[in-house]
Amino acid sequence: MCELLGMSANVPTDIVFSFTGLMQRGGRTGPHRDGWGIGFYEGRGLRLFQDPRASSESEVAQLVQRYPIKSEVVIGHIRQANVGQVCLANTHPFVRELWGRNWCFAHNGQLTGLVGATSFYRPVGDTDSEAAFCDLLNRVRRAFPEPVSVEMLLPVLVAACASYRQLGVFNCLLSDGDWLFSFCSSKLAHITRRAPFGPAQLKDADLKVDFQAETTPNDVVTVIATEPLTDNEQWTLYQPGEWRLWRRGECIADGKA
Amino acid sequence: MCELLGMSANVPTDIVFSFTGLMQRGGRTGPHRDGWGIGFYEGRGLRLFQDPRASSESEVAQLVQRYPIKSEVVIGHIRQANVGQVCLANTHPFVRELWGRNWCFAHNGQLTGLVGATSFYRPVGDTDSEAAFCDLLNRVRRAFPEPVSVEMLLPVLVAACASYRQLGVFNCLLSDGDWLFSFCSSKLAHITRRAPFGPAQLKDADLKVDFQAETTPNDVVTVIATEPLTDNEQWTLYQPGEWRLWRRGECIADGKA
Repeated sequence: MCELLGMSANVPTDIVFSFTGLMQRGGRTGPHRDGWGIGFYEGRGLRLFQDPRASSESEVAQLVQRYPIKSEVVIGHIRQANVGQVCLANTHPFVRELWGRNWCFAHNGQLTGLVGATSFYRPVGDTDSEAAFCDLLNRVRRAFPEPVSVEMLLPVLVAACASYRQLGVFNCLLSDGDWLFSFCSSKLAHITRRAPFGPAQLKDADLKVDFQAETTPNDVVTVIATEPLTDNEQWTLYQPGEWRLWRRGECIADGKA
Repeated sequence: MCELLGMSANVPTDIVFSFTGLMQRGGRTGPHRDGWGIGFYEGRGLRLFQDPRASSESEVAQLVQRYPIKSEVVIGHIRQANVGQVCLANTHPFVRELWGRNWCFAHNGQLTGLVGATSFYRPVGDTDSEAAFCDLLNRVRRAFPEPVSVEMLLPVLVAACASYRQLGVFNCLLSDGDWLFSFCSSKLAHITRRAPFGPAQLKDADLKVDFQAETTPNDVVTVIATEPLTDNEQWTLYQPGEWRLWRRGECIADGKA
């Protein structure tokens, strides 16, 4: 199993605190030694850091922890390889351009029997995850050759996720830089932080942060993770089959497949 | 004008030396203050570092200079903005997936009147460069929906470059991770280093490297840059309209458009 990390916020926010917790699970407090990656949206641009080595030993991960990149949407992932060798091409998150936007995707779980169509989007590596991402984008493109709103898009996303779930475990995060879509087949949790902000204590590292000192009263920041990252806050667990769509920190749609 | 940097090698080679020279031109010895980016292929994977800030002040650039990433194909770029605001989405190199491979592109020059087709690949940012890259990929895709060899592809690449050159200045580097294609409309230089290796002295920084100590006798490493990066070696200048195709450090095809 891998671990996912997502963030949706209404102001550019740094994710150093949550990322630091997640990175510990990459070979130190967790078994996820087979690479990690994180994508930060800056406007329509996407800044991607990836390393096929364990995050707890990665020099690039240390840079990301030191360097408070502020973003409104973030997708991160640490990997324990099930399918596909350990290499950069198999490292999440995966990115493709659709409708002139960068789409970013990370997956936790394992799928068997996914038939990767030799359609428009094709996997570069050999993971089931990237094959699912390409299949999903091919479905979107077939349904909507021209851009539509995320509300119109949702039924296609949910139907695709529901079909992948039939093939195994499929927890995922997907974004185009504006909205963040999350689907839970087995395990996913979220927390929305807003005023009054309090302190938070990481489960996986001896690190505490006082969000009150770091935020303004209007900030709304949602963090999504495979498992809760802090042990003094109340996270909400997704139910199997549940999906949520986030924008600027708020849940704007949800449902169950 | 921007500056380009490319490398093609027959063994994974670090480009720290050349990158260090190029980065000095990003705001210190040169006027290219509007961002920089560099893509390193690792197998079929592509590691991309970008920053919309001046390279001589960028923390990410310092990481790349410290961190000897070894690669067989590299494409780098520092930017002086002509078209499009200074932001991540407008920062070279640009990447798209085609035929299940990562295609990476950087451009030096300025084009006027390029009509960006609303075809398959669409620009995320608003530079003429990314519009040309998308147009080029759309042409390739239209000509060859399924993968073909680079030899079959070459006429399409050269014809596309020749047409962009009619619209202004178009020096470019393009790769799919295997080959590196270079086109010169006004300014480009290359050097191929092979045994016996000697010392090299950067023009833009007080840095010398003894390639003999860093290489094996079979290594072949070609570096391509807008202007020669060293002042004690013999670089070859491209002629306007000249293109060269590199693979594993060797020029495998060339011609004039």
